[in-house]
Amino acid sequence: MMKIAVLGFGVVGSGTVELFYRNKDSIIKKAGKDLDIKYILDIRDFPDSPYADKIVKDIDVILNDDEVKLVAECMGGVKFAYGFVKSCLQKGKSVATSNKELVAQKGAELLSIAKENNCNFFFEASVGGAIPIIRPMHQCLAANEISAVAGILNGTTNFILTKMIEEKMPFDEALSLAQKLGYAESDPTADVEGLDACRKICILSSLAFGKHIYPDSVHTEGISAITVRDIADAKKWGGEVKLIGSTKKLDNGKIMTLVAPHFVCRGNLISSVSDVFNAIMVSGDAIDKAMFYGRGAGKFPTASAVVADIIDMAKASGTSISQVWEEAEDNSFLENIENNKVEMYVRIKTDKESIEKVFSGVDFISEENGELSFVTPCLSEKEIDEKLSQIGAEVVSRIRVLDI
Amino acid sequence: MMKIAVLGFGVVGSGTVELFYRNKDSIIKKAGKDLDIKYILDIRDFPDSPYADKIVKDIDVILNDDEVKLVAECMGGVKFAYGFVKSCLQKGKSVATSNKELVAQKGAELLSIAKENNCNFFFEASVGGAIPIIRPMHQCLAANEISAVAGILNGTTNFILTKMIEEKMPFDEALSLAQKLGYAESDPTADVEGLDACRKICILSSLAFGKHIYPDSVHTEGISAITVRDIADAKKWGGEVKLIGSTKKLDNGKIMTLVAPHFVCRGNLISSVSDVFNAIMVSGDAIDKAMFYGRGAGKFPTASAVVADIIDMAKASGTSISQVWEEAEDNSFLENIENNKVEMYVRIKTDKESIEKVFSGVDFISEENGELSFVTPCLSEKEIDEKLSQIGAEVVSRIRVLDI
Repeated sequence: MMKIAVLGFGVVGSGTVELFYRNKDSIIKKAGKDLDIKYILDIRDFPDSPYADKIVKDIDVILNDDEVKLVAECMGGVKFAYGFVKSCLQKGKSVATSNKELVAQKGAELLSIAKENNCNFFFEASVGGAIPIIRPMHQCLAANEISAVAGILNGTTNFILTKMIEEKMPFDEALSLAQKLGYAESDPTADVEGLDACRKICILSSLAFGKHIYPDSVHTEGISAITVRDIADAKKWGGEVKLIGSTKKLDNGKIMTLVAPHFVCRGNLISSVSDVFNAIMVSGDAIDKAMFYGRGAGKFPTASAVVADIIDMAKASGTSISQVWEEAEDNSFLENIENNKVEMYVRIKTDKESIEKVFSGVDFISEENGELSFVTPCLSEKEIDEKLSQIGAEVVSRIRVLDI
Repeated sequence: MMKIAVLGFGVVGSGTVELFYRNKDSIIKKAGKDLDIKYILDIRDFPDSPYADKIVKDIDVILNDDEVKLVAECMGGVKFAYGFVKSCLQKGKSVATSNKELVAQKGAELLSIAKENNCNFFFEASVGGAIPIIRPMHQCLAANEISAVAGILNGTTNFILTKMIEEKMPFDEALSLAQKLGYAESDPTADVEGLDACRKICILSSLAFGKHIYPDSVHTEGISAITVRDIADAKKWGGEVKLIGSTKKLDNGKIMTLVAPHFVCRGNLISSVSDVFNAIMVSGDAIDKAMFYGRGAGKFPTASAVVADIIDMAKASGTSISQVWEEAEDNSFLENIENNKVEMYVRIKTDKESIEKVFSGVDFISEENGELSFVTPCLSEKEIDEKLSQIGAEVVSRIRVLDI
């Protein structure tokens, strides 16, 4: 019998416990080992829970119990989770986590501690919730040199943009609706300003290219400045506005990672991904491209990924099979945003002549309230900036065009 | 050093060899074991190939070489491949195959032989080419009770339908174009009449529900009867016509599997999958639904899946980790098509009154050339048949509506 401890009995933790017991027979069959949950760590009491007898408040109970071989960390945050997970791994206990902040901040270190202690650190639930993406990238696409990963990594902002796209709802109203429906927090900053998506693209980039990228080194823009006019222009141009996290390996060997709203053309399946769903496109030298789609958050979708990791940790018990990536010495492997080559949607308060003097052969999208909109040719962001300051008029909006 | 033999040096076999050598360093690193290809089995000579010295014509050379631990079967067909794969597994050599016909016909038996001989039989390449689907279903979604799998499993027919949808090209013309571009064989029957998709849904169904389903027990319809009028009606109704392979577990515990063209509504991401791309939607109790999308065929996409299997076989060497499913005693676990509950698009040569006498409250889609089209309420196919014979007029077209 192999015992499991679940750290944190919030939404994901309780989902993990409930899902485990709901499908216990088939889970044990698939793991090939008898499994049970022995402890649930939480500072709160849950007297009415059927699992009340499993609640403990002291991490040492778990750390000092040799029967506990598998740990599911569903607490969130870094402050406590980091120390707890590190201690578990140092004791040779494998850990599965749904905590994207922890993996984005401490992934390289925790993976290396797992390797040293011949156990595993899995984090399928940290990106894309229910969507299998970590394991497919690591295993199924292992024959490929991955060149780029890009996708919709945050369900809240995709819900808001969907309302803006389908119902022409302004941003503020769509955000209020998302809060009312429980899709957005009362402080929506982490979602709306792109931080959540940033943590996730950092994890995917580290996995794809083998070097840890920290969220604070990634250029990150959210969707709070997007207007219904931007969205209408995207439609006229032939696509939709989506918040995209992307990372790619450039010809010079450097990595370009960013989070920002993008125009996504209708031929790209990502443009059709709506509501709270997430989708991640991966490009590789053999596969061309593959996309993974599903619910990026929620109690049972996230628990599904945690429990799948538990099954795999049970199967791999005694061996260390988790991927590793390097702690980067500095950020010199990251390309600066000003060298990012893109086509850029621009809305600017000027006339066609002034634009055509600087950008040759552009197609204009719309002209309204003295604002002209168009898409630039593919140039570096620095060149685009320079050309726009040559025009010298007020730039109302600028949104990159997705090229994956 | 672990040696590999590749059986068959056609499109997929040569792709496997080329991809292995192109990304050899990172493949070996990921496998954690030194690997090389020792033999390529083919009855033909390839004097100009850089791998000419590896070509052998006698399977016994491979079977009797204890250094060969891993085999990639890329021959296709069942006649020779079955015996070769069986002999390899009986010698304890793990086998990866891209051969959907072999897995659909002999999967249960070969998986059980692999288990007996403590080796592995992998077949990621047999469904969806480059798309990771077998391993994600087996591993990443392991915490779920899967309830349904449905998708576009054949690239040739999806290309033909895309031409019919986007350019209003009649079927015959679109087929000729697919042949000209090399997407369809000179004898296109296996693709166009749904047999290829049928083999793939049999594999996915066996994997999802644990019992082997044989292609000849599955109701299979192709797309050769689809007309541009059907497609125009689908658009008016709010979707597209797609060839879908689907399998689901019904409330009575039986499995309903079929291959047929379906109306897919625009809200379903599958409706947006165009050209030669494949996409597979999986429903489970925890994930709700997840979709996997990519190139379903082609030299390197398929080789990508074969080489990923080779890496996993190398890592798992000495243990048997491949899934197993039961050989079913009879077909009593399969639901008959006449009990399939669906909404059905019908085009029929009669008037509204005659239809409304039999089907209450239907919305009519179009009326042209004396043919009226509408979608029935959700009924069993038997009931729909009975009602249509009550009307007694010529039914020109009937296409199911996808409900996943």
